Amino acid sequence: MNAPDATATTALPRIDASRLWASLMTLAKIGATPKGGVCRLALSDLDRQARDLFVRWAQEAGCTLRVDAIGNLFARREGTDPGLPAVATGSHIDTQPTGGKFDGNYGVLAGLEVLRTLDDHGIRTRAPLELCVWTNEEGSRFVPVMMGSGVYAGAFTLEHALSATDRDGTSVREALAAIGYAGQAPAALADGAPRFGAFFEAHIEQGPVLEDAGDVIGVVTGALGQRWYDVVVSGLEAHAGPTPMALRRDALQAALPLMQAVDAIARAEAPHARGTVGWVQVFPNSRNTIPGRVSFTVDFRHANDAGLARMDAALREAIAAVQAAGRVAVSIEPVVYFPPAPFDTTLVGHVREAAARQGFGHRDIVSGAGHDAVYVARTAPAAMIFVPCKDGISHNEVEDARPEHLAAGCQVLLEAMLHTAGRAA
Amino acid sequence: MNAPDATATTALPRIDASRLWASLMTLAKIGATPKGGVCRLALSDLDRQARDLFVRWAQEAGCTLRVDAIGNLFARREGTDPGLPAVATGSHIDTQPTGGKFDGNYGVLAGLEVLRTLDDHGIRTRAPLELCVWTNEEGSRFVPVMMGSGVYAGAFTLEHALSATDRDGTSVREALAAIGYAGQAPAALADGAPRFGAFFEAHIEQGPVLEDAGDVIGVVTGALGQRWYDVVVSGLEAHAGPTPMALRRDALQAALPLMQAVDAIARAEAPHARGTVGWVQVFPNSRNTIPGRVSFTVDFRHANDAGLARMDAALREAIAAVQAAGRVAVSIEPVVYFPPAPFDTTLVGHVREAAARQGFGHRDIVSGAGHDAVYVARTAPAAMIFVPCKDGISHNEVEDARPEHLAAGCQVLLEAMLHTAGRAA
Repeated sequence: MNAPDATATTALPRIDASRLWASLMTLAKIGATPKGGVCRLALSDLDRQARDLFVRWAQEAGCTLRVDAIGNLFARREGTDPGLPAVATGSHIDTQPTGGKFDGNYGVLAGLEVLRTLDDHGIRTRAPLELCVWTNEEGSRFVPVMMGSGVYAGAFTLEHALSATDRDGTSVREALAAIGYAGQAPAALADGAPRFGAFFEAHIEQGPVLEDAGDVIGVVTGALGQRWYDVVVSGLEAHAGPTPMALRRDALQAALPLMQAVDAIARAEAPHARGTVGWVQVFPNSRNTIPGRVSFTVDFRHANDAGLARMDAALREAIAAVQAAGRVAVSIEPVVYFPPAPFDTTLVGHVREAAARQGFGHRDIVSGAGHDAVYVARTAPAAMIFVPCKDGISHNEVEDARPEHLAAGCQVLLEAMLHTAGRAA
Repeated sequence: MNAPDATATTALPRIDASRLWASLMTLAKIGATPKGGVCRLALSDLDRQARDLFVRWAQEAGCTLRVDAIGNLFARREGTDPGLPAVATGSHIDTQPTGGKFDGNYGVLAGLEVLRTLDDHGIRTRAPLELCVWTNEEGSRFVPVMMGSGVYAGAFTLEHALSATDRDGTSVREALAAIGYAGQAPAALADGAPRFGAFFEAHIEQGPVLEDAGDVIGVVTGALGQRWYDVVVSGLEAHAGPTPMALRRDALQAALPLMQAVDAIARAEAPHARGTVGWVQVFPNSRNTIPGRVSFTVDFRHANDAGLARMDAALREAIAAVQAAGRVAVSIEPVVYFPPAPFDTTLVGHVREAAARQGFGHRDIVSGAGHDAVYVARTAPAAMIFVPCKDGISHNEVEDARPEHLAAGCQVLLEAMLHTAGRAA
């Protein structure tokens, strides 16, 4: 039979857009800022309040709760075949100091809305479902960032994470105990935490691509790899007045073409590459003194390692050209490497098919930023669903998203999870 | 008679290079730093000690002392025709917080050595000679800079200068009283301070030109005019990861060609133009955030106003081109204007002739920096004599100069002053 399976489509449950929005607005009250944003730092008392609310909602939806040793929360809805690995979703509910209502929170509450909708329709899945709240994704109070998922995936050890301290000297271990979320379950996959059968994360895009294109769903094919560097250009500090142009060793003027190269190198690798100079320090930074030293950062991102390697080579070539002119010395130091993380093509396909089935404008997109799903993808098939955010702005109190877009992403999440977990007869 | 006047040349007195050097090293002990520099802030107790030493030396040389209301010191050696205006020289003895032994101090002690040498040889001048110590040239503790000569020349009022306060809230008026140098003589020419017949200032070059050329004497033909600006480039702050290159409004990338233009515009006006970006501020200056705003300074210098106007126009053209691209907004604000100050051609000629007569390698040079002589030049014929400083470095504890160069500059000063004041029969 090649005829479309109309029954299967019409029988798909629809999420409740109003309930999703109401959940988001209720959670956003915890740590709400006067400017309409949210300040809910990881493992603060506000984080505790938000966790308590999540736990209550998950229990009301019939889930069992598991808390692991780094404070990650897992709300479990059993399937008909408890031997199958869970099909999981989730994100985080900590925020930046001047964060918004949607970053992270949307991924958690979209997952909750999926569970509620399945309950509403009495739908059972073959595989169990799990809804995760990952600890300290933002990294604003404690580093490393993406702490909970990083421990889970083995990016760093549990002990390393528990020992991290905030500016007041409080450790993660102490903060977890203080808010009552130092759980007993193993946190790391290597220590016996269960491996998922699949993991989905819904998230606002945090960029301008979907809005610019007029699309509603971003089918995230993977996360860009990242290579970060520190560059220092050393010349000779001198008085701006008495030093003729021809005798200068101006560190800033020598640094300018390198900063331009960072941008140009990324444009040459369009569309899935980024090159950013975000931080610059000029020494002595005096109006009438020729700069003697300029330090700046380079943030390169690319969908694959070969591309990152080309970008690295091009930057070093530009530096060699500046050095060859003989007026300044340039040093470059790699400081961060995140490998490119392509998502699972089958799961990505489920997301794409769900968006198409619902007639949502959609496009394949890469995640330029890190997300919990990027770490989880090291351990299990994973995929992400992006929805537009206003003006592409995030990590900001004016962060905003449209209810119908959030509902569309949630609907796609439901269908992709249901497809993956399998609907019990 | 066209034959050279050999008698006049051989009869010229020679300064005592050792005595000059010894004076410099003695004065440099007051406020000496462990790194070999001097920290002697204006109107501090160290400044008082240095002034006291100067007064003693000037009185030992038979001078009468005058202290004006802004603390400028004038040591006067009478001429045979007291009705003639004084032929003056001098500089300053305050230093930068991490200053050197020569900046300013050399000009004062070279003048002292001239007076001592004339005494040694029993030479009287027709015009009286005056040796000036100008208050607070550096401006490190109190602004405006070049305070004493600025009050004298009417660049700003005495009251404005006396009311200036340091970071501790101490005013110039209080500081002058505290060190006992609040004089009675009128400070401003407009208030009755005497007008000089001529003014010479010897100074280390504070730049690399003489050393680079292998010359000993810089015949300073004038001081560059200066136009300073504040430029602000406003784009849109965004995440480095999720924002594709084509959708960026990166304030830093837009600012880079403008910073390059500042340099290129000055090179197009070589040799007597300067263009410097000395200060840069990137906002929010975060490694993985596309800069939303970049502020930077522009310091343009040129020997004449037409040149400054061309530089101004070229910068505004570059800004218009960046604005026309439509990704950022650019504002430019002029903040400082010092007019170009050509020195008196007759006095400059005396300096050049003296250098040639002694066989000193010399070249015409412009002063890129401000000096007391630049203000005095608004009131009387003025000229300057530069000598090399090591690596062109000044305003630094490693500032250094060679004794034979300092002696050569002093000899030229003596001859130029003697020529101008006239040798009494």
